[in-house]
Amino acid sequence: MNTEVMMEKTVASQTIYDGKIIKVKVDDVQLPNGKTAKREIVNHPGAVAVMVITDDNRMVMVRQFRKPLERMLVEIPAGKLEPGENPEACARRELQEETGYTCASLRHVASFYTSPGFADEIVHLYRAEGAKPGTAQPDEDEFVEVMYVTPEEAQRLIASGDIRDAKTILAVYAWQLNAK
Amino acid sequence: MNTEVMMEKTVASQTIYDGKIIKVKVDDVQLPNGKTAKREIVNHPGAVAVMVITDDNRMVMVRQFRKPLERMLVEIPAGKLEPGENPEACARRELQEETGYTCASLRHVASFYTSPGFADEIVHLYRAEGAKPGTAQPDEDEFVEVMYVTPEEAQRLIASGDIRDAKTILAVYAWQLNAK
Repeated sequence: MNTEVMMEKTVASQTIYDGKIIKVKVDDVQLPNGKTAKREIVNHPGAVAVMVITDDNRMVMVRQFRKPLERMLVEIPAGKLEPGENPEACARRELQEETGYTCASLRHVASFYTSPGFADEIVHLYRAEGAKPGTAQPDEDEFVEVMYVTPEEAQRLIASGDIRDAKTILAVYAWQLNAK
Repeated sequence: MNTEVMMEKTVASQTIYDGKIIKVKVDDVQLPNGKTAKREIVNHPGAVAVMVITDDNRMVMVRQFRKPLERMLVEIPAGKLEPGENPEACARRELQEETGYTCASLRHVASFYTSPGFADEIVHLYRAEGAKPGTAQPDEDEFVEVMYVTPEEAQRLIASGDIRDAKTILAVYAWQLNAK
């Protein structure tokens, strides 16, 4: 099918909320069959995430409280892009803040939309090359705990539901594929 | 660190928007250091996604327009949970609607939060066993195109950015790991 034919044309757009991080709008769209529908949309600045594998083959992860879920989550280091910020610069900044690690270079692994049905958030995933440990420098309002996870532990934590974050499972799988 | 110590306590909660699919609220929270902060939170009913591998080793995907991104996206079959709906029943329903496929059974692969920083959406990913093709029955307002993607094509489409959806990349990696 032609892309043109499958598109939804915006007829009206109403901003519901313009917050510190997200913006929420409701668009009236015209569907390919001529009918109209409402689309609830969350705009997000985008984010980065970083795979760091230590010399003894552990993946660096952070454990932190996630308010939307009201629970602790184990994730790879990640963070939101500041306006106009270069994703690689953001990845280095977040990695050092949360874990203390610095790296010689970053290799792009993949970029992906996290919730394309209702949000435009994109995550740029990198793998750190030549990573060196250092002292974490979290924001004064950031409370994270650094973990070092072996491939076997990662598999177990995914199975048990302790690792339950899309970008982190994706990164663990990429790591396993790379090792095979 | 103790989980209790890292939690954020809700001091106040304001509902910004209560829509058809999402609900948006802003919570005032007390941080572990006693300071307060605002948290912008999107509530979502959750979703399912299904991996179907055909007899000739192709993954079934759907190409559709995604309004939040204003572009076409190639994804595995997926859909939102209806209130109180069983995830497996939802997976069978969405699979048949979008692709026509039915299956003998579903195997749970992983469940994951897609955007834990601002949303509570969880995706339950299944792999269909004993899948049989049939006739797609899309909702009258749903416009999707079915694709059959080889492992090599999947890898190429991820590299080119044509597959740029977290759950789909995760599923492709799971498929590749399974094949090794």
